[in-house]
Amino acid sequence: MISNTHIASAFDRDLETIQGLIMKMGGMVEEAIENASTALLDSDLDLANATRRGDKAIDALELRVNEEAARLIALRQPIATDLRTVLSVFRISAALERVGDYAKNIAKRTEILQELHPVEGGTASLKRMSKAVQTMLKDALDAYIQRDSALAYDVRARDEEVDQMYNGLFREYLTHMMENPRNITACMHLHFMAKNIERMGDLVTGIAEQVIYLVDGVLPDEDRTKADITSTTRGGTVK
Amino acid sequence: MISNTHIASAFDRDLETIQGLIMKMGGMVEEAIENASTALLDSDLDLANATRRGDKAIDALELRVNEEAARLIALRQPIATDLRTVLSVFRISAALERVGDYAKNIAKRTEILQELHPVEGGTASLKRMSKAVQTMLKDALDAYIQRDSALAYDVRARDEEVDQMYNGLFREYLTHMMENPRNITACMHLHFMAKNIERMGDLVTGIAEQVIYLVDGVLPDEDRTKADITSTTRGGTVK
Repeated sequence: MISNTHIASAFDRDLETIQGLIMKMGGMVEEAIENASTALLDSDLDLANATRRGDKAIDALELRVNEEAARLIALRQPIATDLRTVLSVFRISAALERVGDYAKNIAKRTEILQELHPVEGGTASLKRMSKAVQTMLKDALDAYIQRDSALAYDVRARDEEVDQMYNGLFREYLTHMMENPRNITACMHLHFMAKNIERMGDLVTGIAEQVIYLVDGVLPDEDRTKADITSTTRGGTVK
Repeated sequence: MISNTHIASAFDRDLETIQGLIMKMGGMVEEAIENASTALLDSDLDLANATRRGDKAIDALELRVNEEAARLIALRQPIATDLRTVLSVFRISAALERVGDYAKNIAKRTEILQELHPVEGGTASLKRMSKAVQTMLKDALDAYIQRDSALAYDVRARDEEVDQMYNGLFREYLTHMMENPRNITACMHLHFMAKNIERMGDLVTGIAEQVIYLVDGVLPDEDRTKADITSTTRGGTVK
């Protein structure tokens, strides 16, 4: 058995710095979600464009977080719980980076939608769904910093509501498409936006599960993504 | 500066074991892609169901790979290149796990498609696209084991062809939907399958980029995903 050679206070100080960077990254991703959905709702192309451009800073921060975490491992050589804590940094930063990518993709599609036949009421539900995910992310990050597994379990439970919103939108857009073929292209883009938000919810749930793993030492059973039932139903209730 | 305390041969032996597990995992994921697309093409529900069930073994192997890699870090305390090599294990296993998830999702949607109005010629192009990604994955894993960055760059370049196949399918399915509303629900599922395969290509490209990073010490410029132009075009050429 190799002895634990790191100096606890130095390790903790370095870890706090990294966690600070993760919180900064998380704040940028929350803002990207907010801006992407606001740009969509208000047809604000400047905001959509700013959201797209802003993703580069998120990507750069992920690289920096990963470099700092690798440096921490090399310098302090943590084992056991400390090692698990540092390794979770890579997973959380990767999840945040991907949530940022989805926000960027929503902003891109917002720009396209402006040129298409408008779909009535197509964006308000997306904004609500997006807001739910944004709040989940905020709470998941709070749970991370406070090592609060109860809050993390709560975030995880709320992902089901997001999945249900997605299932509702899936049917709603199918109905619009069937009622009027001029809606088809716009609804395809709205559909992908809804799917992007649903995937964001899964990624935020993954962050919450990392918190649960850090605090309780076990990962919850993997059954959280099955509430997207659109891949297992015929959508047969639409007209 | 902390000295490099690990015994090289022990580290290398442990790393080889982990790389063996990654190759095993990669083989299972290749098979999942093959089976998911064959099940789709042949409407083979038994094979689709087996593909869905097989994903559990892939997930379990990812957990084992990550545990072994964390154990290697704790025991051998690698730094510099060795640390980078072990950390890439987490990224590669995570990418493989997600490719497996997409194969599972294709298998799920195959089961749904059986109950829907069939779309002429809808699946043959998906099979071709899927085959291209499967070959990319095989080559990315070969590039990983042989530390062959030229092959990794080749894999990365081929992702553009996959993106172009996806763009073509996006337009093809829109056309089918506009021509006949009875195609809409089936085409939505085919569409998501195409998107799943396109995302698989991105993930395999990510594995190739990890190989480039391991061998050359730098990540290639991030410009590989922009060839999916459907989120930046109106799809206006469809009738």
